[in-house]
Amino acid sequence: MVPEEVMLEMARPIEHHRTAFYRDMYKEVHELLQYLFQTKALCMLFTGSGTSAMEGAIVGCCPPGHKALVIRNGKFAERWAQVCASFGIEHTPLDLEWGHGAKPADITKAMDADPAIDTVIVVHSETSTTALTDVEGIARITRERGALLLVDGITAVGALPVKMDEWDVDVYVSGSQKAMMLPPGLGVAAVNERAWERIDSGKMPTLYNDLKAYRKSHKTFDAPYTPALTLVRGARYALRIIKERGLENVWAETAMLARATRAAAEAMGLKLFAADPVDSVTAMIVPAGVDEAALRKTMRNKYGFQIAGGQGDLKGKIIRFSHMGYVDAFDTLGVIGALELTLAGQGFSVTIGSGISAAQRIFAEAMTD
Amino acid sequence: MVPEEVMLEMARPIEHHRTAFYRDMYKEVHELLQYLFQTKALCMLFTGSGTSAMEGAIVGCCPPGHKALVIRNGKFAERWAQVCASFGIEHTPLDLEWGHGAKPADITKAMDADPAIDTVIVVHSETSTTALTDVEGIARITRERGALLLVDGITAVGALPVKMDEWDVDVYVSGSQKAMMLPPGLGVAAVNERAWERIDSGKMPTLYNDLKAYRKSHKTFDAPYTPALTLVRGARYALRIIKERGLENVWAETAMLARATRAAAEAMGLKLFAADPVDSVTAMIVPAGVDEAALRKTMRNKYGFQIAGGQGDLKGKIIRFSHMGYVDAFDTLGVIGALELTLAGQGFSVTIGSGISAAQRIFAEAMTD
Repeated sequence: MVPEEVMLEMARPIEHHRTAFYRDMYKEVHELLQYLFQTKALCMLFTGSGTSAMEGAIVGCCPPGHKALVIRNGKFAERWAQVCASFGIEHTPLDLEWGHGAKPADITKAMDADPAIDTVIVVHSETSTTALTDVEGIARITRERGALLLVDGITAVGALPVKMDEWDVDVYVSGSQKAMMLPPGLGVAAVNERAWERIDSGKMPTLYNDLKAYRKSHKTFDAPYTPALTLVRGARYALRIIKERGLENVWAETAMLARATRAAAEAMGLKLFAADPVDSVTAMIVPAGVDEAALRKTMRNKYGFQIAGGQGDLKGKIIRFSHMGYVDAFDTLGVIGALELTLAGQGFSVTIGSGISAAQRIFAEAMTD
Repeated sequence: MVPEEVMLEMARPIEHHRTAFYRDMYKEVHELLQYLFQTKALCMLFTGSGTSAMEGAIVGCCPPGHKALVIRNGKFAERWAQVCASFGIEHTPLDLEWGHGAKPADITKAMDADPAIDTVIVVHSETSTTALTDVEGIARITRERGALLLVDGITAVGALPVKMDEWDVDVYVSGSQKAMMLPPGLGVAAVNERAWERIDSGKMPTLYNDLKAYRKSHKTFDAPYTPALTLVRGARYALRIIKERGLENVWAETAMLARATRAAAEAMGLKLFAADPVDSVTAMIVPAGVDEAALRKTMRNKYGFQIAGGQGDLKGKIIRFSHMGYVDAFDTLGVIGALELTLAGQGFSVTIGSGISAAQRIFAEAMTD
């Protein structure tokens, strides 16, 4: 969901990227991104999805002679292991049961077992399983052991507390289409000095997603390849909204929506999928006797709510609700209300009003003056 | 320049990419791209600039054991040699004087000298120098010798005659922000069966720009990574406009604007930069005594026309005028009129009205019923 005002901002006349207009816009977007990532590090804007920025980060930070530990606990985590495999990067995947997030102890154990590991790659919020990884705790381990920590923050940055500099994370990556309230098409990689040292120490096959090219262009507030002008303009607008609301308030509201949705699930007799549920998106297990495809179709066509299903092995087994970006308490009441009606329509035993009442009690606690 | 109606189309509500809405849209965009490229080949949509699609094409088509000839006649041509260097692709650059396009004889000579060459990489319209390469003639050589021909068509496709299948070009690449009348952020690679055979024969370090991943997703009208939804929607709208106008008419109008601009330059006493001028963009040499930066500033701030300068070694030496996409005869009269006034304002001896009259005579010939 993208605010209408952001869509209309992007419809304004296009200005070429080698102009004062673009440079001023880029400078402001860059400052706003530093606020969003809570960092003083360089935040690079990729014309691409979050995957382009993450590929650039992994490839740049893992030149020959280094070894990565890739926590593999979902579909996106698997992709980062594929990047390593494709580029011939020495790596060890560590498989966690889906729905679980990585804990500091997982990292300690893996690094104790293999002292060659000097790079750790995790997904902060694994969207496919809705599991939360303890990035702050893991960063303590990587700091202590002098390893680099690369974090896929694609459904975390702007939704969950992310404090890149305070936690001392080396690379955080995000994309435009989630908490940034924009259409897809922009990737962002924030890279600290420790990561730059690593990147500068080696040479890898990369051009389009080459972080060094982005750093060079940044000096003149330019881009190495034509930037996605409309999305950069939209980013300025959307990030200004986030700054005005205050990042802590955005984090708190996202967490509130997640709490309300989890309370609603329990009240309706639905189980959560994730053992370590994240606050940016909630997955409920489709109960026995309910047809997931029919459920999502009714939600969309009859009630007007688009919710996500499961991917890969989870197809047909879970439904997912986003709490990121342009969605509020009353949207959340609406989608839970529609879910109650849809479940009842399929003959699932649900007390009408139970889900929305449970959610509303959370909102009453959090929002009543 | 992007038509207002395309910008507003892109401001419409966003639909997720795993929906019937997106699949139907993607199917239509794909058919329209096949029309634009004049091909039955698979046309893949990259979330990225034209460079992402071109990197994917070069890397995919040049696995170990193959050798590329890269015609290097401008800034974009240089980038493709950099892709080869970065990915360790065996290649020979062939430097041409800037402003010149590649001719079939250049290719024959280079391939005679080095029989290991089995891949030729050229830029159809080298935007940085405004030089035209004879793709049709070069394709005859590559066919005869069984080599692959990869063409950067970023300012050619949709502007100049491009007949991928008739000429038997193996890969044509383009980007959204030129003749497609869209903002930047989409790359397109059209890949024929001969190229797919080569791509499938080897393995290269690539994930984000991996053509194989795009081909796989295409089977279900999906994308391997989140697509740039708003730009795909804009593409459908803009390509429908092009189809309605008729591709041959678009090519003819682009050529007419170029002829008029060249005639205007001659009438104003300005020299063209390119020895082999292309019809999609015209470069004029900044005459002695004229300050290029001041000229472009006046054009922009006083008269409202944004024209391009030179890049790299050509900075300050040339000015460039686009004839692609959303620009017509009367826009062209306007920009030439502003150029006359700007040159006169800098004390350059120009007969007021000479440029626009020369352009208008071309338009009278071509447009009068």
